[in-house]
Amino acid sequence: MIGIAVIGAGRIGQIHAANLARNPRARLLYISDSIEAAAKDLAQRCNARVASLDRLLDDRAVDAVLIASSTDTHANLVERAAKAKKAIFCEKPLDLDAAAAQRCVDIAQQHAVRLCVGFNRRHDPSFDKLHSEIRAGQIGDVEVISITSRDPSPPPADYIARSGGLFRDMMIHDLDMGRWLLGEEPDQVYATGSALASDDIRVAGDVDTAIAVLRTPSGRLCQITNSRRCTYGYDQRIEVFGSGGLLRVANATQTRLERADANGFATEPALPFFLERYADAYRIQLDRFLRALGGDALDIPSGNDGVRALQLADAAQKSLQTAAPVAV
Amino acid sequence: MIGIAVIGAGRIGQIHAANLARNPRARLLYISDSIEAAAKDLAQRCNARVASLDRLLDDRAVDAVLIASSTDTHANLVERAAKAKKAIFCEKPLDLDAAAAQRCVDIAQQHAVRLCVGFNRRHDPSFDKLHSEIRAGQIGDVEVISITSRDPSPPPADYIARSGGLFRDMMIHDLDMGRWLLGEEPDQVYATGSALASDDIRVAGDVDTAIAVLRTPSGRLCQITNSRRCTYGYDQRIEVFGSGGLLRVANATQTRLERADANGFATEPALPFFLERYADAYRIQLDRFLRALGGDALDIPSGNDGVRALQLADAAQKSLQTAAPVAV
Amino acid sequence: MIGIAVIGAGRIGQIHAANLARNPRARLLYISDSIEAAAKDLAQRCNARVASLDRLLDDRAVDAVLIASSTDTHANLVERAAKAKKAIFCEKPLDLDAAAAQRCVDIAQQHAVRLCVGFNRRHDPSFDKLHSEIRAGQIGDVEVISITSRDPSPPPADYIARSGGLFRDMMIHDLDMGRWLLGEEPDQVYATGSALASDDIRVAGDVDTAIAVLRTPSGRLCQITNSRRCTYGYDQRIEVFGSGGLLRVANATQTRLERADANGFATEPALPFFLERYADAYRIQLDRFLRALGGDALDIPSGNDGVRALQLADAAQKSLQTAAPVAV
Amino acid sequence: MIGIAVIGAGRIGQIHAANLARNPRARLLYISDSIEAAAKDLAQRCNARVASLDRLLDDRAVDAVLIASSTDTHANLVERAAKAKKAIFCEKPLDLDAAAAQRCVDIAQQHAVRLCVGFNRRHDPSFDKLHSEIRAGQIGDVEVISITSRDPSPPPADYIARSGGLFRDMMIHDLDMGRWLLGEEPDQVYATGSALASDDIRVAGDVDTAIAVLRTPSGRLCQITNSRRCTYGYDQRIEVFGSGGLLRVANATQTRLERADANGFATEPALPFFLERYADAYRIQLDRFLRALGGDALDIPSGNDGVRALQLADAAQKSLQTAAPVAV
Repeated sequence: MIGIAVIGAGRIGQIHAANLARNPRARLLYISDSIEAAAKDLAQRCNARVASLDRLLDDRAVDAVLIASSTDTHANLVERAAKAKKAIFCEKPLDLDAAAAQRCVDIAQQHAVRLCVGFNRRHDPSFDKLHSEIRAGQIGDVEVISITSRDPSPPPADYIARSGGLFRDMMIHDLDMGRWLLGEEPDQVYATGSALASDDIRVAGDVDTAIAVLRTPSGRLCQITNSRRCTYGYDQRIEVFGSGGLLRVANATQTRLERADANGFATEPALPFFLERYADAYRIQLDRFLRALGGDALDIPSGNDGVRALQLADAAQKSLQTAAPVAV
Repeated sequence: MIGIAVIGAGRIGQIHAANLARNPRARLLYISDSIEAAAKDLAQRCNARVASLDRLLDDRAVDAVLIASSTDTHANLVERAAKAKKAIFCEKPLDLDAAAAQRCVDIAQQHAVRLCVGFNRRHDPSFDKLHSEIRAGQIGDVEVISITSRDPSPPPADYIARSGGLFRDMMIHDLDMGRWLLGEEPDQVYATGSALASDDIRVAGDVDTAIAVLRTPSGRLCQITNSRRCTYGYDQRIEVFGSGGLLRVANATQTRLERADANGFATEPALPFFLERYADAYRIQLDRFLRALGGDALDIPSGNDGVRALQLADAAQKSLQTAAPVAV
Repeated sequence: MIGIAVIGAGRIGQIHAANLARNPRARLLYISDSIEAAAKDLAQRCNARVASLDRLLDDRAVDAVLIASSTDTHANLVERAAKAKKAIFCEKPLDLDAAAAQRCVDIAQQHAVRLCVGFNRRHDPSFDKLHSEIRAGQIGDVEVISITSRDPSPPPADYIARSGGLFRDMMIHDLDMGRWLLGEEPDQVYATGSALASDDIRVAGDVDTAIAVLRTPSGRLCQITNSRRCTYGYDQRIEVFGSGGLLRVANATQTRLERADANGFATEPALPFFLERYADAYRIQLDRFLRALGGDALDIPSGNDGVRALQLADAAQKSLQTAAPVAV
Repeated sequence: MIGIAVIGAGRIGQIHAANLARNPRARLLYISDSIEAAAKDLAQRCNARVASLDRLLDDRAVDAVLIASSTDTHANLVERAAKAKKAIFCEKPLDLDAAAAQRCVDIAQQHAVRLCVGFNRRHDPSFDKLHSEIRAGQIGDVEVISITSRDPSPPPADYIARSGGLFRDMMIHDLDMGRWLLGEEPDQVYATGSALASDDIRVAGDVDTAIAVLRTPSGRLCQITNSRRCTYGYDQRIEVFGSGGLLRVANATQTRLERADANGFATEPALPFFLERYADAYRIQLDRFLRALGGDALDIPSGNDGVRALQLADAAQKSLQTAAPVAV
């Protein structure tokens, strides 16, 4: 069993802690949070103890740390954990600054600790199977990828201010999926966008509606559509078109109940948001992290993946601002 | 080109006349109807002439007659047309009385004229392909068939009175489809039903909701569900389960437009009723009749099929009344 | 927390024990099985202890027992547990003999212990929502129910011999669902069937393909189709037709991946069998049992439901043998 | 009835002629083609006469001409027809050169004759309803449009050479649909592409795989994906995302037959190509042209629409070559 500590007892930290508490490969030892009460409450629910950072990094029973605190603390925590020789699972992004993110990777490498980044979508069973089918050659050569990703509603104004903008905060997930599924690094990014859904976002100089197009050296293309508003749930779809056919993943619903009346045949809306849509993915993600630490050869997103996705997000942001494609 | 006369200028006669007028294999010569104005109107729209029965049966240019008048006139018209050596396409049923229907078949045979019955559904492209796939062995041996068939709303009270009841009027189509798809004659029928949708139907002693189960000597089963009320259009589905898999045909909609909002993902309701749902089938049906008269070897429903379906309907009616399966 | 003991460490006992071990409302204390090694192995995996029946029934810390042993032991175990004042969750059926099943209910009542029966399907989130929507009047009055239920392959010959036949072993689940969704007790059952899929079943005098039709006093109808063979997975579908529309639940697949090529657009086959299809239902079922014991007013299947479903299965079996509908 | 002459007896001319021959509003008078035999053959099949251009333009019974000859003849024919005071239906494009296309519009205006362009897809019943639902405000404000359009296989090498390239030849249809559905003129186009499917196309310096992104002044976005290869038929889908929800149109299949076996649940591939997919659209398109000539106020694509789509295609082509967005 792998001894683990969770840093950050907010919404996402709670998800991770609950998954760790139920995972037979893990021993959830500590919860740490700058808000003592939050740490205490979560620790109690998970049979763990509250600990300061110093204490948990000092404890040799702690093999790994899971960083789920606010983004601006990530880089520092990665550094401290690496120095303490703990394996690291860090929520995305490592940092909003690509250079700082790269330093995280370098430090982890220097101290020879594993650094994984929380790109949860790669672990969704449907997307995971999509990826394996592509790699198994089921649709020949990948030619075009279409990613549709829409959040149900804009985040609060204060979140927008420190989010790094739509590309670094939201599209970064889709950029990672694009890279992963293309099977080849994009070398050009074009992006455009508008603020159509939220005045707060417009005022903040950000966009809430965006399209990006990635291009790889061999000419493979990937288009991503994002919106911060979606009336029918959390819209998460991917379509991969290859020389031999198409593979696609449709939205998930709560149940498979369908209704027919004079208005037609209706299924449920898509699952409301990421906690529901990626509940399985969050669980599998940590299980794979634990298995990887246990020695299994698993392809899980590394610090490098985190850096690369951030570079693509930066390029998209620059493309939006310069109204020109950007080389990466 | 085959010279043809249409007898009956009502709703279904109009459909047939319009299809004949557009078919390059046919020359629509006459329209006949007991209501002179109706005949005139339809004849004008189809570039045909109005004629009395005597006249059109006398005209040697008339190779075939299409009987689309009221059910109680069918048997007599079949007899007269057979004696006049005209090929016959007769709307279902030949007669509400199975013995009278059998006489139609006998007379047609005696005079060596072709007698076809208007089981339009067999000519629907989806059902037709379903049938060919079964015959081609695509799902191995047929084991169970499920037929769902629901009309949008009950017919008027006066129609109910002379309809012969749900089994002879409505389910007869499904009984024919069952026979056709089973590939083996049923030898036992069980049926039960209720009047849940219409007081008129209850008062008339008829049912508007019914289930029938057919059994063949080798043990194949077919279940049919009927209702005279359906809020989401004309519900017409068939599912055939075989040793090697399942084949099924879903409902048709006017367009393929889908809508998503907070209520979910919705397609259109099913097409409203038989004129829309079977528009193609009606056209193909007559084209095949004409091709068969021209010598093509086509499997189109004969007078015998009409008699056999009626016998199954009679058995279903008797089963309903006796609350016991009936051998056929 | 409710102290609980699991009797029977076979396939289904393992499912239940694992769900109890993860449920915060339960304290899984003992595993009991006539095969000592099986009990030991399961107990170890679930942090429980092995115990004899006497011991666990004597232990006051045991509030409830879960009976998952072979069917022929159920009635006796229910009696002993009732006398020991334990709440009881018993896998279906209580007994293959309806009178014996009724005695279970009587004894439980006599000793004022709760007796629940494992009709897992009622707890499936899709079917559960189907039921609530009906009760909420979303489709008006229920008129016709269609249940399709097909197992992937016939059970082993020795299982068939002691199964009680298709109606008591397999269709009993569908009969329970029919009763539950109809909202009115059926008073007539017609059933017919054949042995088309398995020689073992034919030789045993049982059927592997069957259709049953239920009728209620007010004229509501329910048809059930069963097969012991299905090439595309475990086929589990329900369709409920009411005066105001249709509600239906489609099959579940492992992932939502879809593939398109020259053969068309294909989704995955249905989930392979009940352990996969009803994984959530098994978990929810026990959670509700525990919540009901904790005082929540929940509609969960009782001993009476077990008896009633068995009576319908007996009626179906008799109908098959007498080729006539049977009153219940 | 409107007297009409068809110029061009090739594949598309034959479609149009057949539709005109069956349309009660039209009197198909002449067929003209530089290949006399082709004209003769088509005229015979449609009960029309063969005529030279001079003759048909001189005949006062000819109210309108339908131009379906090769692209390089369009502009000249439009001019001659306009001068002869004939209404004009011209297949797309008016010309591969936008200035020449504009001259067509000017000349038609100068001579006060109606000039319509064959953007068939606007007349597809599903896309047409999509458009009306948007205009009726069913999804609020349009924000993002996704158009997927894939041909089954690359055209022959000699066609590629004179096609004007993917954007002017193939994507022009999608660009027109984008404009039409956006409800606002795009003022910026970005396009990128590759030659992945065909060596002929690569050698010709053209692309067979492309993505374009359109932007309107108010910030609405439209992305278009094209490929000249598609294994599952002619892929024609549109998705429109608005402030209030999503509207989309899925692919069409030949029949609604579905099959289930161990490989999953499969529907048919998409209809093979445009003649099948847009058979209804071609018929409706001409009927609307005829009704518009008869005085009905119908929104059908005009010469201006033809010019505007061509300008967008030119911009896309320029964007591909300069690797930068292009203002229009």
